[in-house]
Amino acid sequence: MNRPLAALAELVGAEHVLTGERIAPEYGHDEALTVAARPPAAVVRPADAAEVAQILRLATEHRMPVTARGSGSGLSGAAVPHPDGLLVSFERMNRILEIDTENHVAVVQPGVTLSQLDEATAAHGLVYPVSPGELSASLGGNVATNAGGMRAVRYGVTRTQVLGLEAALPTGEVIRTGGKLTKSSSGYDLTQLIIGSEGTLALVTEATVRLYPRPPHQSTVLAPFRTVDEVARVVPKVVASGLAPVILEYIDAFTMAAITHTQQLELGIPAEVRDSAQAYLLVLLDSRHADRLDEDTEQLGELLTGLGAVDLYVLPGAAARKLVEAREKAFWTAKAAGANDIIDVVIPRATIPEYIRITAEIAKRHGSHVLGCGHAGDGNVHLAVFQADGEVRSALLRELFEASMKLGGLISGEHGIGRAKARYFLELTDPATVALMRRIKAAFDPEGILNPDVLLRSP
Amino acid sequence: MNRPLAALAELVGAEHVLTGERIAPEYGHDEALTVAARPPAAVVRPADAAEVAQILRLATEHRMPVTARGSGSGLSGAAVPHPDGLLVSFERMNRILEIDTENHVAVVQPGVTLSQLDEATAAHGLVYPVSPGELSASLGGNVATNAGGMRAVRYGVTRTQVLGLEAALPTGEVIRTGGKLTKSSSGYDLTQLIIGSEGTLALVTEATVRLYPRPPHQSTVLAPFRTVDEVARVVPKVVASGLAPVILEYIDAFTMAAITHTQQLELGIPAEVRDSAQAYLLVLLDSRHADRLDEDTEQLGELLTGLGAVDLYVLPGAAARKLVEAREKAFWTAKAAGANDIIDVVIPRATIPEYIRITAEIAKRHGSHVLGCGHAGDGNVHLAVFQADGEVRSALLRELFEASMKLGGLISGEHGIGRAKARYFLELTDPATVALMRRIKAAFDPEGILNPDVLLRSP
Ligand SMILES: Cc1cc2nc3c(=O)[nH]c(=O)nc-3n(C[C@H](O)[C@H](O)[C@H](O)COP(=O)(O)OP(=O)(O)OC[C@H]3O[C@@H](n4cnc5c(N)ncnc54)[C@H](O)[C@@H]3O)c2cc1C
Ligand SMILES: Cc1cc2nc3c(=O)[nH]c(=O)nc-3n(C[C@H](O)[C@H](O)[C@H](O)COP(=O)(O)OP(=O)(O)OC[C@H]3O[C@@H](n4cnc5c(N)ncnc54)[C@H](O)[C@@H]3O)c2cc1C
Repeated sequence: MNRPLAALAELVGAEHVLTGERIAPEYGHDEALTVAARPPAAVVRPADAAEVAQILRLATEHRMPVTARGSGSGLSGAAVPHPDGLLVSFERMNRILEIDTENHVAVVQPGVTLSQLDEATAAHGLVYPVSPGELSASLGGNVATNAGGMRAVRYGVTRTQVLGLEAALPTGEVIRTGGKLTKSSSGYDLTQLIIGSEGTLALVTEATVRLYPRPPHQSTVLAPFRTVDEVARVVPKVVASGLAPVILEYIDAFTMAAITHTQQLELGIPAEVRDSAQAYLLVLLDSRHADRLDEDTEQLGELLTGLGAVDLYVLPGAAARKLVEAREKAFWTAKAAGANDIIDVVIPRATIPEYIRITAEIAKRHGSHVLGCGHAGDGNVHLAVFQADGEVRSALLRELFEASMKLGGLISGEHGIGRAKARYFLELTDPATVALMRRIKAAFDPEGILNPDVLLRSP
Repeated sequence: MNRPLAALAELVGAEHVLTGERIAPEYGHDEALTVAARPPAAVVRPADAAEVAQILRLATEHRMPVTARGSGSGLSGAAVPHPDGLLVSFERMNRILEIDTENHVAVVQPGVTLSQLDEATAAHGLVYPVSPGELSASLGGNVATNAGGMRAVRYGVTRTQVLGLEAALPTGEVIRTGGKLTKSSSGYDLTQLIIGSEGTLALVTEATVRLYPRPPHQSTVLAPFRTVDEVARVVPKVVASGLAPVILEYIDAFTMAAITHTQQLELGIPAEVRDSAQAYLLVLLDSRHADRLDEDTEQLGELLTGLGAVDLYVLPGAAARKLVEAREKAFWTAKAAGANDIIDVVIPRATIPEYIRITAEIAKRHGSHVLGCGHAGDGNVHLAVFQADGEVRSALLRELFEASMKLGGLISGEHGIGRAKARYFLELTDPATVALMRRIKAAFDPEGILNPDVLLRSP
């Protein structure tokens, strides 16, 4: 280990290679609830793509595991380093290189955070629409996890927004993919292949992302329903209406009570409504025109009432913002409430009612609690799992994932597989697909240095 | 060759293995202007995914080249078979398996054509929005070329619409990717990797694609401008307006004259306007509300007039449809006018004025003519190249592609690289990227049987 460390120090400067006591505890973990923290052999903080490429070349030569780290807000343990490996932290590569107002794109280094980008684009009346719950997340981390969030139902996920990448390969080469181009048919789409690959194929050193005009008018509607089943049945109807909501979330009553309580949110919902509502639908509409927004909000209200909403609340700006924020913090609320794991299966939107019925039954059978909310418009169901016994929980999770796949779904809609779910992924995915993914992994990373315990668990 | 042919006959039925005289001439070509027709050793017409997989297994065993064919409307020669190989024609796999109105998706076999799907979705008030100029094209071909077309500026290209695939691998396995899912973060995105791979990685045996509500109201605006430069400068402004046009095309005066002439289209544009206009902008807007459409059309008119439009024509329904159709047929018009090649570079939208200036200069230097139109909102410039001398034309094309790449563009926005442009692609793409693509190709296709002369020209 000493020889490569000396070479690394020479490469990036000794002050940017941290070992032993100098490794701060946060480098040892992300926010996954079930993956134990462990420090890497060394933290390296490169300044540019050339340095990243050299680090990878060296790591390949010495067969040292390498884990990339953005902001460490991931929920799958994919940024937890290997104890004998390097953690490449992108904290110094944190510049917005360009806001191109003509082509509506931003070019950013991977360490740029979502809140940093939001501030910069707002100044131009533009918006980068991906909005996972944690705005301290980095764009590099977003690309690697294919981050989603509440606005995906209108704008799509990270995959939809990233037009080009610069990436360093384990072979020590730097490639550029795509560009300020909304489309192309010029060879394999390496951009899309790297997106969502959880740091196992290449390290992202720059990203070109789409921007959109920031619509000035917004309205937020909260509708309580008698049952989760009812609320879930409403979702395809709202999508079909053509109202094109920006947010379309369901929140079960327990989660609603918990997030409004912890965030001290007073929404003015009478007790009798609260008592009869087992679930809520949260819808955000926007428009370039105030009058169209009013009209759309009214149409939405009529639609929801017709479909069984117990009541309707058009939330004023401040309350709406707070409720959206509280929903974004649902993870912390669940964690504080003692949730043992948080998962985010994705299923065909219209099967949510069925899936929720099945989860309740699976939970009951295992003497566990499973509660949640979800990006309903995307079929992305977030569940907090309460079951302290690791073995029981494993069996339960496996059944929850299996049930999702039986409905045509997958294990994760946006959090990724990481370390936390690699075992279930490998057990439940068809062997031909896993074998193909392993061959693709080898095409990028012949020595298997990049995040070897993540996703495919390369030998 | 006889042994594998006998095995094929056993597999799919002798009547579905065509050789010699029984091979109709159209199996030997697609619509590329520069790739010579040549028949394959045999045409095979499988009935289902299992048969496709068995054909591939056999071909891998015998190292026989395999080319997939949809409708043969491709413009890059990627469906032109190898003379010693098999042409797998998907004509029998042409069923729409499902129109799922709850999840807003269609599940189709690869031989389904765009017009077939359009008819089926219209019955449900839904639309599959990808609309390349040739509606006889198959969905399998669309997936393999990542087809675009005029509506991509609003809806995105094929890549945006395909949520899942079933595909047969050269190893003889059948895999399923994605599903009725608008997002996922569960392993490498094989769907996206196969899209645009021009039949070189896997054969698509089924696709799950997104559907959208079909907006009832449309208006079409045609605006003449004094110069191509002027019209190209208007494009980013229309995109920034938030009007979200469905179509945003530029058409140069020569192309306009040619397409209106061949299609016998009378748009009522006075001679003096025609004489002063070197280029036209064609914009289609749509809406769920007639009054909003009127308002938007007015706003668009004001915007275009303010930016120098010589005049404005809001086309009545029939004329609008005819003009859009005529534009779709621009390829046939150019071919009839004697164009020697048609290319479709993609560049950052805002660089179109500069690119068009450069192309004029390159054309002049080579004593050639280069004229065109384009999916301007996407930065996708379609150029008809008039230069009969093959060597001069090669030098000219190389410069046109190089100029695109210098502006941050790529060789093809939607037609693909195929056989026609493989040479330029390999010359102009950075070697590390080509080498990585070759390793990915090998991960799918170890013996290099799939379309070996296309894109990467595997040895
Ligand atoms: C309260 C809370 C709410 C959340 N809500 C959402 C939500 O709604 N939707 C959602 O999608 N996610 C959500 N997340 C998860 C998290 O924010 C996202 O996964 C985010 O994309 C992680 O970004 P990061 O910079 O923190 O990445 P990290 O945690 O640092 O890393 C995540 C993965 O990316 C890799 N990586 C990081 N940088 C690079 C790089 N430059 N090149 C290659 N690989 C790299 C890492 O190796 C790891 O595999 C939430 C998290 C929290 C704590
Ligand atoms: C008049 C005209 C206008 C056009 N306008 C446009 C336009 O605006 N935008 C646009 O994008 N294109 C356009 N095209 C090109 C063409 O229509 C598209 O490329 C279309 O996607 C080809 O579909 P196809 O079924 O004809 O494919 P084919 O020509 O049969 O094949 C094209 C490629 O797909 C592969 N392929 C076919 N089926 C499969 C399968 N099942 N699995 C794997 N690979 C397969 C073939 O091997 C080949 O590589 C136009 C063509 C014409 C003639």
